[in-house]
Amino acid sequence: MLDGNFIAGFAAGEGCFHISVVGKRPQVRAMFTIQLRADDVMVLEQIRDTFGCGNVTVYERKSGSPIACFRVGNLPDLVNIIIPFFEKYPLMAKKQTDFDIFKNICWMMVRKEHLTDDGIAIIKSYKEYMNIGYVDDVRELCVDD
Amino acid sequence: MLDGNFIAGFAAGEGCFHISVVGKRPQVRAMFTIQLRADDVMVLEQIRDTFGCGNVTVYERKSGSPIACFRVGNLPDLVNIIIPFFEKYPLMAKKQTDFDIFKNICWMMVRKEHLTDDGIAIIKSYKEYMNIGYVDDVRELCVDD
Repeated sequence: MLDGNFIAGFAAGEGCFHISVVGKRPQVRAMFTIQLRADDVMVLEQIRDTFGCGNVTVYERKSGSPIACFRVGNLPDLVNIIIPFFEKYPLMAKKQTDFDIFKNICWMMVRKEHLTDDGIAIIKSYKEYMNIGYVDDVRELCVDD
Repeated sequence: MLDGNFIAGFAAGEGCFHISVVGKRPQVRAMFTIQLRADDVMVLEQIRDTFGCGNVTVYERKSGSPIACFRVGNLPDLVNIIIPFFEKYPLMAKKQTDFDIFKNICWMMVRKEHLTDDGIAIIKSYKEYMNIGYVDDVRELCVDD
């Protein structure tokens, strides 16, 4: 088991909170990920074991070193484990802002507000304030998982 | 003041332990750095204040976002503050290996062994096992400082 503050520090640097809104009838997905070079997969396995949720996958890339990815995309795990964890062990700076928005959107999803036009509009407006920006669809992450 | 384990987690992801050996009469330098995008400079300032040593500098780049850099290159600070800190709050995986080698080289420098041909040969052989590899001269880091 890793120390909670260690994980918070690690996630403050290496973690990503992703929200994607895709499709004509928009589907909202939320995912927390940490990606590292595959030779550090052991760290991710210890993080997974400490959380007690999520998956660790190692996959090859077309170029560059293999990647190890820890991801949690299951809404109950996000709401019951990941979000309370980072409320207890705060992140810092920009990553904290991402987390605050991510948390709000996850709770909107719990309340099914992401199934309404108004909810989608709010989520899209939230997304603009997040620091992720490099993936439009969380399904693109860890493609081999 | 930041939690020690938080800093360890953050440094496990974002920190770098650099050793450079340059010149015909080789000079050895050691430096611990953390570099982030400049809009997260506040995290580095808190890390500096927690350690009570080192400098934080923000500098522009020819391309890309401005960078904030925390660095400690003063040997007494490395030996008396940084090394004991990461002995108390361990890093993980590859970064731990880097730290172990960095620590050995810093102690060789305290004993002036880096001023001998044998010492230089040992330091160069150590360096091959470190995970840094992207800088030959620590003076290239944070050039505006």
